[in-house]
Amino acid sequence: QGTRDHAPAQAALRDRLLSAVVSCFKRHGAAAIDTPVLELRETLIGKYGEGTKLIYELQDQGGELLALRYDLTVPFARYLAMNKITNMKRYHIAKVYRRDNPATSRGRYREFYQCDFDIAGQFDPMIPDAECLKIVHEILSDLQLGDFLIKVNDRRILNGVFAVCGVPESKFIPACSTVDKLDKVPWEEVRSEMVGEKGLSAEAADRIGEYVQLHGGLELIERLLQDPKLSQNKLAKEGLGDMKLLFEYLTLFGITGKISFDLSLARGLDYYTGVIFEAVLLQQENEHVEEAVSVGSVAGGGRYDGLVGMFDPKGRKVPCVGVSIGIERIFSILEQRLEASGEKLRTTETQVLVATPQKHLLAARLKLISELWDAGIKAEMLYKKDPKLLKQLQYCEDTGIPLAAIVGEQELADGVVKLRDVATREEVRM
Amino acid sequence: QGTRDHAPAQAALRDRLLSAVVSCFKRHGAAAIDTPVLELRETLIGKYGEGTKLIYELQDQGGELLALRYDLTVPFARYLAMNKITNMKRYHIAKVYRRDNPATSRGRYREFYQCDFDIAGQFDPMIPDAECLKIVHEILSDLQLGDFLIKVNDRRILNGVFAVCGVPESKFIPACSTVDKLDKVPWEEVRSEMVGEKGLSAEAADRIGEYVQLHGGLELIERLLQDPKLSQNKLAKEGLGDMKLLFEYLTLFGITGKISFDLSLARGLDYYTGVIFEAVLLQQENEHVEEAVSVGSVAGGGRYDGLVGMFDPKGRKVPCVGVSIGIERIFSILEQRLEASGEKLRTTETQVLVATPQKHLLAARLKLISELWDAGIKAEMLYKKDPKLLKQLQYCEDTGIPLAAIVGEQELADGVVKLRDVATREEVRM
Repeated sequence: QGTRDHAPAQAALRDRLLSAVVSCFKRHGAAAIDTPVLELRETLIGKYGEGTKLIYELQDQGGELLALRYDLTVPFARYLAMNKITNMKRYHIAKVYRRDNPATSRGRYREFYQCDFDIAGQFDPMIPDAECLKIVHEILSDLQLGDFLIKVNDRRILNGVFAVCGVPESKFIPACSTVDKLDKVPWEEVRSEMVGEKGLSAEAADRIGEYVQLHGGLELIERLLQDPKLSQNKLAKEGLGDMKLLFEYLTLFGITGKISFDLSLARGLDYYTGVIFEAVLLQQENEHVEEAVSVGSVAGGGRYDGLVGMFDPKGRKVPCVGVSIGIERIFSILEQRLEASGEKLRTTETQVLVATPQKHLLAARLKLISELWDAGIKAEMLYKKDPKLLKQLQYCEDTGIPLAAIVGEQELADGVVKLRDVATREEVRM
Repeated sequence: QGTRDHAPAQAALRDRLLSAVVSCFKRHGAAAIDTPVLELRETLIGKYGEGTKLIYELQDQGGELLALRYDLTVPFARYLAMNKITNMKRYHIAKVYRRDNPATSRGRYREFYQCDFDIAGQFDPMIPDAECLKIVHEILSDLQLGDFLIKVNDRRILNGVFAVCGVPESKFIPACSTVDKLDKVPWEEVRSEMVGEKGLSAEAADRIGEYVQLHGGLELIERLLQDPKLSQNKLAKEGLGDMKLLFEYLTLFGITGKISFDLSLARGLDYYTGVIFEAVLLQQENEHVEEAVSVGSVAGGGRYDGLVGMFDPKGRKVPCVGVSIGIERIFSILEQRLEASGEKLRTTETQVLVATPQKHLLAARLKLISELWDAGIKAEMLYKKDPKLLKQLQYCEDTGIPLAAIVGEQELADGVVKLRDVATREEVRM
């Protein structure tokens, strides 16, 4: 349940999609790493907030207690700490597992790919953070998914907001995960969850409401830097200062047109400590194909300066910022778009079919195809002793093989091969 | 335990290795598929003989009973049956899981990659089987792993041998898995396991011994086809006839020099029904590097005509033959060889570092690198506001970046960039 096989056409499409993502990650100088699908259970526990209950655990079979990885960020942090690495730019593309309620039509699975790019190390503020946003911008533009918006916020600003609205520190995380729902439900519902479930005062909730419904650009940052309450809060001030710097860098990258500083963005995970962001595709009312797939976020990430320290025996911190591309949702869109276009994706790369027009020529085919393979040419033949020529040409048409190399009795006698262009039916002897 | 992280250098090496394998699979016209890491437990049970006890099971968390895949062959058969596919040439490269005793120095892990190529469908005998052997030959030659030998046998021949030696049919499979040990232990030990543990008569064991110690080529096949006992056995006769045909095709492919018909080859898995094969690297006494890694089999496979039928509600069979490349052992060899050579593998593909020679030029760097990225050029910069030029050039040397694009105050004023070849220190303004 919640998993799927990829047939050749899907595997080919996914390959095309992942290639685009990898080529962006490589363009930004990232190295690849790989980690096991299995992690020690204790590595994963306590890192994902409400997500922890969705971790797949393995049966205790008399060894270590193991679980399937939930994301690629925690394994990366574990890897850095284990190997005492304090500086690294890496990407990692692999499957992760969540015992969630699958909604497969919306591209939500229990087994799914994540494509992560992260920068670890102590650097000058917001330079790596800005690069992560540039990467999201490049990938979503390259893939031509239509209009998109990248929402940006900072956990320090959110925590500052909670503080000045009178929320006790112990309730920052629950308040955060409630605010996170604002992209799906109206403020009234979020407010009532705050007051009811999370035990915030009605007054605090109302004050929070005034802030978290704000979004804009540099001018909003400037306004909040002047806000009589927020400007008195150390965390919020730091966050707003960095947000201003981030917008400067994004201006130099020329991408602020698609960036929105949005105070309602909270992100569900516990481990974020600074800037957070999330990209959403904007609904295109004219394109029915897009409408059918109600995708939400297609990329997200942020800064997590404390996570690596949780795996280091001495608690040594390694600041990190990273982005995860929501490849499954993008895949769903591309899949539906391909279907609607009627385009047929080739699932193999075969260049030439080795064919014979008469019987008793299997040996000639085997000899020729062997020569082609040894010369690095992608070649196939039918696995029949005496296939009909028509069937062989039909196979070319069905699978998109552009050329047929035909050896008949005459060609054998003359020491040549007849090369046929399947589409134009032109033939040359060579 | 028994798993490992891949650091960038290892990931790059593995990428190079997998690319070679994939390009061979594509050269032979295979399409890619993907299946989940998780399978229903019942799909895996009863397919692997003594291997079944090594299956990783997931905790019962109130849903389906799941396990981690043990190989890629059973999921492929399940996929064919589920989708009623009767004809397919596919490859699949993915991780599989075995709760085995790891021997990591010999490249034996609990989580490891398999690279499988299989041909499913009803075809004329031995044509796809011969192609599988050609593929093993191509890959092992391409990778320049030194001399190798591909052992070939047929389960029907083995079963015929057991039958004519007086082994009851119920003991074919246990006898088979005992014979399989002949590559590791001497005949005497195998014989005593047959008589002791497996309950064969001493007489039967001795008769088996006469056969399973034979190996050779066409002439051995001819001789056994004349063997007074074997030639009376229907299964053995079929197997030997097909083996002869296989050798004819392999002769046309020009690869019989590395093929040995070896009656001791048995392969551990239950599901084989016809030809079986296994490639081993031959020890090179002069090369100390190879000697250090005692690798055994580096590829194996065979025909399994009954497996797909086990997953079809009506038991419809789809004949299959396939090969699995033992990528982990090959990886261990390449890793040790690389280490011994002192060659440093680049882990990134960055073409140019954007650098500045003076302070207060971060904005210039951000603007230039953004242009480069947008033009598809692989570019990096240091994440510092004011890095020293020496540090920037040092980074190029450390990571193998060939070019530095330098923008200083003069270049900014002149509207140019200074492009420096890091190795030769040549500079051009452009």
